[in-house]
Amino acid sequence: MRLTRFTDNALRCLTYLGLHESETSTVTDVARRMSMSEDHLMKVVQRLASLGYVETIRGRNGGVRLALDPAEIRIGTVVRQTEDNLNLVECFDAALNTCPIAASCQLASALDEALSAFLSVLDKYTLRDLLQQPRRLERLLRA
Amino acid sequence: MRLTRFTDNALRCLTYLGLHESETSTVTDVARRMSMSEDHLMKVVQRLASLGYVETIRGRNGGVRLALDPAEIRIGTVVRQTEDNLNLVECFDAALNTCPIAASCQLASALDEALSAFLSVLDKYTLRDLLQQPRRLERLLRA
Repeated sequence: MRLTRFTDNALRCLTYLGLHESETSTVTDVARRMSMSEDHLMKVVQRLASLGYVETIRGRNGGVRLALDPAEIRIGTVVRQTEDNLNLVECFDAALNTCPIAASCQLASALDEALSAFLSVLDKYTLRDLLQQPRRLERLLRA
Repeated sequence: MRLTRFTDNALRCLTYLGLHESETSTVTDVARRMSMSEDHLMKVVQRLASLGYVETIRGRNGGVRLALDPAEIRIGTVVRQTEDNLNLVECFDAALNTCPIAASCQLASALDEALSAFLSVLDKYTLRDLLQQPRRLERLLRA
């Protein structure tokens, strides 16, 4: 079980931008400093912009920066929005399901309850909570 | 975010065998009735046997059956054992991690807490809990 690389990179990107709230960062710089592919990060930034988390500025001094206060960016919400889907098993998607007993199986409801517990924990955290050691994080970024 | 097909099929296989506790089923029959590839199911059964959940019987009337009471088979434990790993994001695996701030990032601990909450819910359920409507499930299997 793992989150998609897209979600992983979205969270990394938000973390970097949260650490550099007062500046506009270039995609090249975020990709290099956070060890991500620039092409992939570009797609992540487009999605984060369409979701209203970041804004992109065109032109010579352009780039990307947070559009919200880190305390307003809830990690559970970001994960729900950046995962393609949260279909833990095949039968979560009726269109793909092949299991004949799905209609009466209790497993799906147990997994659904487990998924809700997972997301509820992430709903407790905002980006601000992830940035509690800015100096240590900055030091690691510069290493 | 999704569980592996291996875990999905392991849970399907255990559910089928739990519904047919008094008999020995053939892999061919379980695969056909539960819409799984027989080759894949064979690997699942080998793993479930090595974990002590099922026993395989050789010979003309051979096959596979549960080796434990369904009430002893805890879903959280099965998921922990059948998932390749529970590395939700790259930095959960130090050998693969590329993120420079992993050492001080709070995201990993938030995700770890979320994963524990997920597994704790599944730890509340045993295979017996998933089989509470045996007649309805049997009817679906015969449909």
